[in-house]
Amino acid sequence: MFEAVRDKKDSLSERIADMLLQLIIDNDLACGEKLPNEFELAEKLQVGRGTVREAVKLLVSRNVLEIQRGKGTYVAKKPGISADPLGFAFLKDKHKLASDLIEIRLILEPEIAALASLNANESEIQNMKEISSKIEWYAEKNIDYSDLDIELHTCIAQSTRNLVMPMLIPVINNGISLYNTLPRHSERMKAIYAHRDIIDAIAMHDPDKARDAMYKHLIYNRRSLEEIKSKLQYESQEL
Amino acid sequence: MFEAVRDKKDSLSERIADMLLQLIIDNDLACGEKLPNEFELAEKLQVGRGTVREAVKLLVSRNVLEIQRGKGTYVAKKPGISADPLGFAFLKDKHKLASDLIEIRLILEPEIAALASLNANESEIQNMKEISSKIEWYAEKNIDYSDLDIELHTCIAQSTRNLVMPMLIPVINNGISLYNTLPRHSERMKAIYAHRDIIDAIAMHDPDKARDAMYKHLIYNRRSLEEIKSKLQYESQEL
Repeated sequence: MFEAVRDKKDSLSERIADMLLQLIIDNDLACGEKLPNEFELAEKLQVGRGTVREAVKLLVSRNVLEIQRGKGTYVAKKPGISADPLGFAFLKDKHKLASDLIEIRLILEPEIAALASLNANESEIQNMKEISSKIEWYAEKNIDYSDLDIELHTCIAQSTRNLVMPMLIPVINNGISLYNTLPRHSERMKAIYAHRDIIDAIAMHDPDKARDAMYKHLIYNRRSLEEIKSKLQYESQEL
Repeated sequence: MFEAVRDKKDSLSERIADMLLQLIIDNDLACGEKLPNEFELAEKLQVGRGTVREAVKLLVSRNVLEIQRGKGTYVAKKPGISADPLGFAFLKDKHKLASDLIEIRLILEPEIAALASLNANESEIQNMKEISSKIEWYAEKNIDYSDLDIELHTCIAQSTRNLVMPMLIPVINNGISLYNTLPRHSERMKAIYAHRDIIDAIAMHDPDKARDAMYKHLIYNRRSLEEIKSKLQYESQEL
């Protein structure tokens, strides 16, 4: 009997979570916007505050909402997208995952660069240049720049005007971060200086140059990855 | 004070959820496998059954676990992947989303077909042929075949041996299902018969033919989509 009561309660909060989600979508609540408080939501949805609280918790774990302690509940910055949307944590072979991600990037990102060169505006190009300078500065000082690297590639994808491409970039760009090690300085700098060629080509609105430059950049990335892999395999044989 | 107690409890079940997730990954529990019961998990993780239950609920809403009523808790079929991993529900302009997805498919899937032609084995090719026949049968009878269509494209992506490509297919292939309407019969049949050419090229292990056939198939898909879009826009003007 207790089981039955609990099941009902679960499905109620699930249902309320779905209603709340629809409310957010229908009212076009933007990322980072604040939700009405528990009392108002309970009244609006005609359920108890406890149910609202459970529904909110479910949406937090689905990355739709974020609770800021002492401030309230907000729509997440990237609503509905988890930190690992394709469940890479469940793939055992991280070496293969890293190579397979590079294989996808080599297909997708040269075309993204070409489309970006046709559509990027001045402020986007300025932004790319600034991120790229920061990356070079970080790399020279041996500071991890992987977040900035993803930011740059996302910025390029955004300027294609395709809604989905910038969403895919963070998913397929976590190859290097799979290893807690950096590639050799010289290999790394080659990949990083290639950023300049990509941005120059985009600034010149030259799709062929942009495509080629991105391809070259990714080939350096692949080479760095192979080096790290063989180094790690060599070390594990030594043990 | 109550608030503080609740917060502590929340973060405990969150922490236990993360431990449980790690346990699943470390023990390489496969999709569809059954989890130990609440008592065993509570003992293993050294927490109360209530906390285990909450942690399980959190992992259910993160698509890692599935509860089968009266049977137990299982690892989800696609652990960690939600039905809408990139949060398309939050994008307002569904017309643009559909076109943008086709744009991505036109870049990615011809290369997937080429790679599939190099790597597919006999049983995979047989499987593709069977799904394709089923699709033709459904389409002739005006039955919705979109799930089978995704299954076929996923099967092609699986035979590339790239781990991530088959994960991307269901994400980028929901263009048509964004509309609750089917394309014109003649346009639809063109797209569907193109499946035969793709599979023939894969069976002949001819990457150029496979790439071209997939490209042609997607161009028909794009044309059908444009037709649906202009029909819908025309209808909304009539209202």
